[in-house]
Amino acid sequence: MPVIPPSRDTARELDAADPLAAFRREFVVAHPDLVYLDGNSLGRLPVRTRARLADVVETEWGERLIRGWGEGWFTAPARIGAKIAATVGAEADEIVVADSTTVNFFKLVVGALGARPDRTTIVTDDANFPSDLYVLQGVVELLGGRHRIHVVHTDGCDVSGENALLAAIDDRTALVTVSHTAFKSGFVYDMARVASHARAAGALTLWDLSHSVGSGPVALDASEADLAVGCTYKYLNGGPGAPAFIYVARRLHEVVSNPIRGWFGQRRQFDFSLEYEPAAGIGRFLSGTPQTLSLLAVEPAIDLVLEAGLAAIRAKAVLQTEFLIALHDARLAPLGFTLNSPRESARRGSHVSIGHAEGWRINRALIEEMKVLPDFRQPDNIRLGIAPLYTSFVDIFEAVERLGRVVTERRYERYSSDRLEVT
Amino acid sequence: MPVIPPSRDTARELDAADPLAAFRREFVVAHPDLVYLDGNSLGRLPVRTRARLADVVETEWGERLIRGWGEGWFTAPARIGAKIAATVGAEADEIVVADSTTVNFFKLVVGALGARPDRTTIVTDDANFPSDLYVLQGVVELLGGRHRIHVVHTDGCDVSGENALLAAIDDRTALVTVSHTAFKSGFVYDMARVASHARAAGALTLWDLSHSVGSGPVALDASEADLAVGCTYKYLNGGPGAPAFIYVARRLHEVVSNPIRGWFGQRRQFDFSLEYEPAAGIGRFLSGTPQTLSLLAVEPAIDLVLEAGLAAIRAKAVLQTEFLIALHDARLAPLGFTLNSPRESARRGSHVSIGHAEGWRINRALIEEMKVLPDFRQPDNIRLGIAPLYTSFVDIFEAVERLGRVVTERRYERYSSDRLEVT
Repeated sequence: MPVIPPSRDTARELDAADPLAAFRREFVVAHPDLVYLDGNSLGRLPVRTRARLADVVETEWGERLIRGWGEGWFTAPARIGAKIAATVGAEADEIVVADSTTVNFFKLVVGALGARPDRTTIVTDDANFPSDLYVLQGVVELLGGRHRIHVVHTDGCDVSGENALLAAIDDRTALVTVSHTAFKSGFVYDMARVASHARAAGALTLWDLSHSVGSGPVALDASEADLAVGCTYKYLNGGPGAPAFIYVARRLHEVVSNPIRGWFGQRRQFDFSLEYEPAAGIGRFLSGTPQTLSLLAVEPAIDLVLEAGLAAIRAKAVLQTEFLIALHDARLAPLGFTLNSPRESARRGSHVSIGHAEGWRINRALIEEMKVLPDFRQPDNIRLGIAPLYTSFVDIFEAVERLGRVVTERRYERYSSDRLEVT
Repeated sequence: MPVIPPSRDTARELDAADPLAAFRREFVVAHPDLVYLDGNSLGRLPVRTRARLADVVETEWGERLIRGWGEGWFTAPARIGAKIAATVGAEADEIVVADSTTVNFFKLVVGALGARPDRTTIVTDDANFPSDLYVLQGVVELLGGRHRIHVVHTDGCDVSGENALLAAIDDRTALVTVSHTAFKSGFVYDMARVASHARAAGALTLWDLSHSVGSGPVALDASEADLAVGCTYKYLNGGPGAPAFIYVARRLHEVVSNPIRGWFGQRRQFDFSLEYEPAAGIGRFLSGTPQTLSLLAVEPAIDLVLEAGLAAIRAKAVLQTEFLIALHDARLAPLGFTLNSPRESARRGSHVSIGHAEGWRINRALIEEMKVLPDFRQPDNIRLGIAPLYTSFVDIFEAVERLGRVVTERRYERYSSDRLEVT
């Protein structure tokens, strides 16, 4: 990691030299003084999405009414899926947009275990997103308790966790499933390494890409990943709760089956035949009717990511997280903060978590008084998400500056340590 | 059924006397010459939804960003669920909005079979919506083939089908599940009768309310229904693919469990604990992150239904379907049409299906040349959906008039009988 002088001047110079700087104008920035570092939870509103949604509502729903289905709504899950495929190294016919990440994860866990009927172990880790673990627990119960979930303990910040994961895979393993980028630490798994190891053992891999997709290149096909899910409301800027996607490598379309059979996954949907017959290809992983307003809002946002290019986005994310870490080391570490994310850029996603014994109260003060919006993850992580399409280097400098002031001015002491259930 | 003179004058008089006439102005009617009779597939756009969505996008997402979750998004599934509950005779804490009808149906089928572990039969009928049958087939396979699906044949137009359904229920029956209002014929089951019969046999009932909700009162609690699902994009006018809802009678909240465990159904979601512990009450039937744009669009539309009142909506639906049937008998039956819906109003929902040997081509001509939008359901049903909030009696008169002209002027002969997969 190069030495970046952690100053405001550096931030200005880096912004001036930023090849993606113009993309910030593609987003609604209603309050320029607000430093928004939670694009890893909810991406900003693209200007073009506002116009697109108004047209969907006014023209497609309001005027065209039911005809909207034949004029682009039916094809949207596959059409938008193909665009997501272009961001994660998949073929256009390997991804559809559908449902929530949790529901899609459920489909693929059940499908994967069905494709490995003689195996009884699921390998995952404790850095995984809890919703994925809950799904696994529910599926094991649903299938009669034949399976065991091996939750590998990882500290989530270096490759030792990945090594422990690999060591847990054996010839009883049906499925290996982890978050590609960990939601707390931002640690990034080596997808090709894990997939190759699992494949050699005869297990399938299922990746949760929620904290990766849109933040840089992902190479699903080249890594020989088997299955993946992810959301579109983080770095893809698809809007609150925007629908998720589902990836199934083409070689598995006929092998892994969707347990939630519905009319959108039926071969000839409008025959209304009484027997289910799965659609050809990836379409069989759809189930019910897509939530079309939320679905169509995703499309212009993905176009923006494709226009910027994943390599350029990743290059900026690396530079910005390095700058943030340099600022942390110079200004925050002396105030009692710790870096809870990997220092090695290749192993770090687009967010950085910093810890502090008073993390919860510092985070409250930051939001209430300092016009910085990060988020907080138990027990002590202030999570700073960098979205290269609109985060500036000055944003990052300002956030660290204000974080430091919360501590040096003891502003956090005004806040309760009671932890309410808010993001 | 009273005799209604099937004339344009009658239509005008009925419109003039209609207590709900003013509600039409609450909807966007971009082309007044278009007769829209497909509100049973996709309800029209309410004027207030357009404004609400613009505010959600611009202010809640664009300005408030992640804070939107704490300012109404988290509570929306339960808040809007409570409003739906008021339309279907349920308590406020018995319904949440979530996912698609198909996904919710899957959850409840699995949950119901889990609650009746010693029973092996599912009773349904062939008038049920096919997606529900596909789900049943998938669940039976998922659970190892222990269950048998008994698909009762009903002609869907009179109570003999209901009698056959009841006769199929016995002490092996775990679950009885039908569409409350049949999607083709519009036949309405007597919910209390079926539920009482099933309960006496020890079986649970699961109702698909998609073609009922918003078209008139439904009495879930009073009928002692156990479980229900439904969509919000038909008579509730929630928008294309608007999210579905899930009803679980309070006495079953701890008995029927949700197989798709996710962080939105977790007791303390933001503790991020690794073990799933279901939320109290109906919240446990949520799974992943709600698609918030689609979800919030539903709310103003339901408010409109509640303002009009379900009894008033139903009274108008009865009068309008009776008027339509009188017109059919006078003008269409002589042209070879048949009535494929019940004549008894108490057994008929808010849509009327009429059959014709050339139904497919007549329907194409009606759409392409006559500015009438019904829909078509195999093999020969032209389905005319009446949405009392915005359908006028003159609309109905016009539709029948134009249908008659398609046949007398032989306009349908220009169209191919090839059946494309369109709605």
